[in-house]
Amino acid sequence: MEDKTGSECEGPEMSLVCLTDFQAHARERLSKSTRDFIEGGADDSITRDDNIAAFKRIRLRPRYLRDVSEVDTRTTIQGEEISAPICIAPTGFHCLVWPDGEMSTARAPEGLRWFQLYVHPDLQLNKQLIQRVESLGFKALVITLDAPVCGNRRHDIQNHLRRNLTLTDLQSPKKGNAIPYFQMTPISTSFCWNDLSWFQSITRLPIILKGILTKEDAELAVKHNVQGIIVSNHGGRQLDEVLASIDALTEVVAAVKGKIEVYLDGGVRTGNDVLKALALGAKCIFLGRPILWGLACKGEHGVKEVLNILTNEFHTSMALTGCRSVAEINRNLVQFSRL
Amino acid sequence: MEDKTGSECEGPEMSLVCLTDFQAHARERLSKSTRDFIEGGADDSITRDDNIAAFKRIRLRPRYLRDVSEVDTRTTIQGEEISAPICIAPTGFHCLVWPDGEMSTARAPEGLRWFQLYVHPDLQLNKQLIQRVESLGFKALVITLDAPVCGNRRHDIQNHLRRNLTLTDLQSPKKGNAIPYFQMTPISTSFCWNDLSWFQSITRLPIILKGILTKEDAELAVKHNVQGIIVSNHGGRQLDEVLASIDALTEVVAAVKGKIEVYLDGGVRTGNDVLKALALGAKCIFLGRPILWGLACKGEHGVKEVLNILTNEFHTSMALTGCRSVAEINRNLVQFSRL
Amino acid sequence: MEDKTGSECEGPEMSLVCLTDFQAHARERLSKSTRDFIEGGADDSITRDDNIAAFKRIRLRPRYLRDVSEVDTRTTIQGEEISAPICIAPTGFHCLVWPDGEMSTARAPEGLRWFQLYVHPDLQLNKQLIQRVESLGFKALVITLDAPVCGNRRHDIQNHLRRNLTLTDLQSPKKGNAIPYFQMTPISTSFCWNDLSWFQSITRLPIILKGILTKEDAELAVKHNVQGIIVSNHGGRQLDEVLASIDALTEVVAAVKGKIEVYLDGGVRTGNDVLKALALGAKCIFLGRPILWGLACKGEHGVKEVLNILTNEFHTSMALTGCRSVAEINRNLVQFSRL
Amino acid sequence: MEDKTGSECEGPEMSLVCLTDFQAHARERLSKSTRDFIEGGADDSITRDDNIAAFKRIRLRPRYLRDVSEVDTRTTIQGEEISAPICIAPTGFHCLVWPDGEMSTARAPEGLRWFQLYVHPDLQLNKQLIQRVESLGFKALVITLDAPVCGNRRHDIQNHLRRNLTLTDLQSPKKGNAIPYFQMTPISTSFCWNDLSWFQSITRLPIILKGILTKEDAELAVKHNVQGIIVSNHGGRQLDEVLASIDALTEVVAAVKGKIEVYLDGGVRTGNDVLKALALGAKCIFLGRPILWGLACKGEHGVKEVLNILTNEFHTSMALTGCRSVAEINRNLVQFSRL
Repeated sequence: MEDKTGSECEGPEMSLVCLTDFQAHARERLSKSTRDFIEGGADDSITRDDNIAAFKRIRLRPRYLRDVSEVDTRTTIQGEEISAPICIAPTGFHCLVWPDGEMSTARAPEGLRWFQLYVHPDLQLNKQLIQRVESLGFKALVITLDAPVCGNRRHDIQNHLRRNLTLTDLQSPKKGNAIPYFQMTPISTSFCWNDLSWFQSITRLPIILKGILTKEDAELAVKHNVQGIIVSNHGGRQLDEVLASIDALTEVVAAVKGKIEVYLDGGVRTGNDVLKALALGAKCIFLGRPILWGLACKGEHGVKEVLNILTNEFHTSMALTGCRSVAEINRNLVQFSRL
Repeated sequence: MEDKTGSECEGPEMSLVCLTDFQAHARERLSKSTRDFIEGGADDSITRDDNIAAFKRIRLRPRYLRDVSEVDTRTTIQGEEISAPICIAPTGFHCLVWPDGEMSTARAPEGLRWFQLYVHPDLQLNKQLIQRVESLGFKALVITLDAPVCGNRRHDIQNHLRRNLTLTDLQSPKKGNAIPYFQMTPISTSFCWNDLSWFQSITRLPIILKGILTKEDAELAVKHNVQGIIVSNHGGRQLDEVLASIDALTEVVAAVKGKIEVYLDGGVRTGNDVLKALALGAKCIFLGRPILWGLACKGEHGVKEVLNILTNEFHTSMALTGCRSVAEINRNLVQFSRL
Repeated sequence: MEDKTGSECEGPEMSLVCLTDFQAHARERLSKSTRDFIEGGADDSITRDDNIAAFKRIRLRPRYLRDVSEVDTRTTIQGEEISAPICIAPTGFHCLVWPDGEMSTARAPEGLRWFQLYVHPDLQLNKQLIQRVESLGFKALVITLDAPVCGNRRHDIQNHLRRNLTLTDLQSPKKGNAIPYFQMTPISTSFCWNDLSWFQSITRLPIILKGILTKEDAELAVKHNVQGIIVSNHGGRQLDEVLASIDALTEVVAAVKGKIEVYLDGGVRTGNDVLKALALGAKCIFLGRPILWGLACKGEHGVKEVLNILTNEFHTSMALTGCRSVAEINRNLVQFSRL
Repeated sequence: MEDKTGSECEGPEMSLVCLTDFQAHARERLSKSTRDFIEGGADDSITRDDNIAAFKRIRLRPRYLRDVSEVDTRTTIQGEEISAPICIAPTGFHCLVWPDGEMSTARAPEGLRWFQLYVHPDLQLNKQLIQRVESLGFKALVITLDAPVCGNRRHDIQNHLRRNLTLTDLQSPKKGNAIPYFQMTPISTSFCWNDLSWFQSITRLPIILKGILTKEDAELAVKHNVQGIIVSNHGGRQLDEVLASIDALTEVVAAVKGKIEVYLDGGVRTGNDVLKALALGAKCIFLGRPILWGLACKGEHGVKEVLNILTNEFHTSMALTGCRSVAEINRNLVQFSRL
């Protein structure tokens, strides 16, 4: 037996072996204002950081002496099979980190797509958008709830980011008609529970509410016949000091009593995190910042690597806890630590 | 979409976008002894720091899908309307940080004023003062309880601050008759519950007791027919290692059973903090050090900025938790975190 | 009002305004091995540090509007009055930090003295010692229990301290007959509960057991008719990872049910600490390392300053919590914090 | 009395007085990849670190006034006497840190040996191995459960360690026939509870299951008639974020109800740790990394020193808690701290 490592050369490309390696590498490649925009949270970034820390406070209770020669990571969301319970969350402005932005991201994952909507004050515009994405084959409509007004992101204000980000105007989408972001994309501040039925009347897509963090809102979601909930705090970018996503998950899962599917985004960085979210009742998780890190590091290929690393880690986490299928992942696998 | 931020120039004025930005900037502008005097706490400054940390341990439980197109931050204290539940706490020696000191601070806020009294051993002097402030239109008398003797502020002793701070002598207030602060402003060490009735007999102003931290004293306050309590630990400057203000609030609010108004000072730095204090039962909060930071940075204009930033943050906090009016802020909005 | 502090000159003598100032100053004056010997704890020094931290986790619940124009710090121990509940703990080798060592320390405090005994395997030698101290007017016999073998103090081993420390041989106390410390001072390893009656038979002094940390041993102490207990972990120098003194105090106080007096040493650094110990049932506290810091900084005068500072702080702590006498200090004054 | 330490010369050899001294010294002597391989944990190394921290959160409750002139550290495991409840855990690749590797380690401890098996997919190969170790006088068969697949050790991947570590091929163990480690040592991924009876049929050795962390698996172990359990998380090298060994111990001990012996590895660094593990129900502890540190520092002699230091510390821990024999160590000696 020998240790030849000393003489080993790592080669010209650095080795990115986990999602936080991509984060570190992306940070080096991006300008300060872009880095702040992606990494930043609202106010003191307490929830952004707690999203990570809350996962780390949960301990796993692995089971052994089970035949794990075959581990199957497949599951379904809204009736459609996915290869692993790992999906991509909606995030904006991918062009900040890679030339063709969302195009590269879109090429990285496989087929199944959901459409995320910020409700526009002009209801007809919402309708046109929904009809377009229906015809494009999107499988669900995700309505984000937690941004009736924009969170207080200090770095973006200090970096004057808002006036510099521009988007194609949705109302007159002619080429070159770019206007400042926050002037351009009004989000309805009056959208409320009673308005949901209108959305249900104009689409056959399942409706998923993104941003719910309490049992009260979870119960209202069930009562209003939506098809799913994404437990999310917008990556800690909207209201600071709300519960970490994984801490809110238990309350929401208990409230919906299995009547609708519950998903989670926020703080997932390892295969263990995916396992924990599923053990606590999530049907799948969504990745936000890690996708942008992958994109910033290597474009489409980086996004693929991020998804592959996390899927492989999740496969290992399943094998090492004795789970042969996603159905075997249950609440007994986790324990909240005293710290 | 473009990221023009790289080429953006911030201009000559630094951007102060939150209250702690004002703190950092003020620290740079002040002499060590003034900085120590303002920032310092008693003994090990444990309570000073815990005032901040305790707020951060509380999590918000936001509600969504409510019409927040109109958010109204107005409330009342002692029957008088204020535009937001954000007031200025009594602090001393504003001239240390800005030439005309309290004059600039006074110009920054709007009309409603309360008078804070350290009870002087000479009762007649108290009476003269109270009659003067009544005639000047002050709306309430705040009696500070937590300073029968001065807290043990190590930095001030090391900086020999006490012998250097001077005040106009209240007993012979002739111009130029300045005498050392701690020799000049005796505070009654014998003032006790039985003495309250004398104050109640000489003024029609509502009496607010500042510094109460326990249910026992809160119950006595109700029993002695005062009109309000400010839960406060003097910014951690008097007795160290007492409860953080926000941690004491719950106990005091429970004890008064809604019979009198309860306010809070200590540790409020963000709109979320204001929201949390109100959710736990405070009618409004008072700002101490942040007002001095604003004053130190930009005089009257800085005080206004500090108040505006906090009010705007509070407005955002209300919108993002689904609160359309102050009356909708309630205990269900908060959860004490495990950490 | 002016801030003249900037032009103030501190003079040649540094200002030591609290006990930890003395610690910092002493550290600078002592050799590494002496510093390690004094400051060091056993093993990982977890208990040494927790002695301090445990005090800081306790919150005070101050009461106001009481007449504190007269605050009386006097109390009694074993029926003898002391001016404040602040005494000096037994520590060794004061000559390491000041030329005439224990002589200077002894001159600093006032009259009342107790004798601390490490039980020697030779019972007659114990008897001779006890008879001598009785005749010298000592008022109590303190028997230290927690050192049947020496704790594992890594620094002292690394510094080869044990072979360098010498003491006059008690068995042949001729001048110059100095032999290595740990070879010279055998402590009985077999001394046990049944041996206590022999000590009770040879002295009329009250017997105080030092080092008890559990309710089980506290109950045995009461059963064996000793007169007092010093809750102590030997400053964290014997067995590491035992409870902090202040954390063990509650259990011991509950167990003795007021039948004998309970004292505490370990971690007292401020007047608040003294107040907390008394609130939790201690009759007085003993100071260990702070006395050596005072001695190292300024000899007899430094010891006096340390005692004066702590007594003054305790006086302030009493006034600011509304305690006019030691008898008014009770359990309601404290609350264990969530952290 | 004099302090001669200042003039004392430490001599050419540095003083290693505790296990973490060996760790620090070993770190300096090893290449980065070897250091990473030994010190590293899986994923974020949370469990590796928590193994240590969890011990530190437990407080000891020492008993005094017991005759500890004779302290006996002997105990038995599987009916065989050992001089202290301190054994060596299986770890791999000792040649990475010392020329003749396992040979030196083996010479350091005394006689009693158990054989650790990673179950090979080829059952007959397992049988041959077991028969060989039986004939060599090994006293028990330890089957490691927690490695059906390899944990995700980022450093080893980044260091390309896996392709550089080689082992003699067990299936054709000719000299020189070295093949890469992870290609060479397949571990059965399908081995499960039902396969245990086959192992029980081919050996008379007691079977010990290593890696159990839950009450569910502990109960199954009892049900399947194994003779012992080693509570272990593989030093935090397999599945990260599982419970610290000492935290899992209580649950496992409660589940087996005394029917079989329970041991522990993971995080033991001091005599107090050994005492805590025994107080919580472990029959003995196993040392992993510390043995490699000893070996790396001084070969066989270093291993002996590590074992001696820990045994001496354990002896002191027993004396200072009033335990005269291992049988006197019980649950009342420990208390989980609030932190």
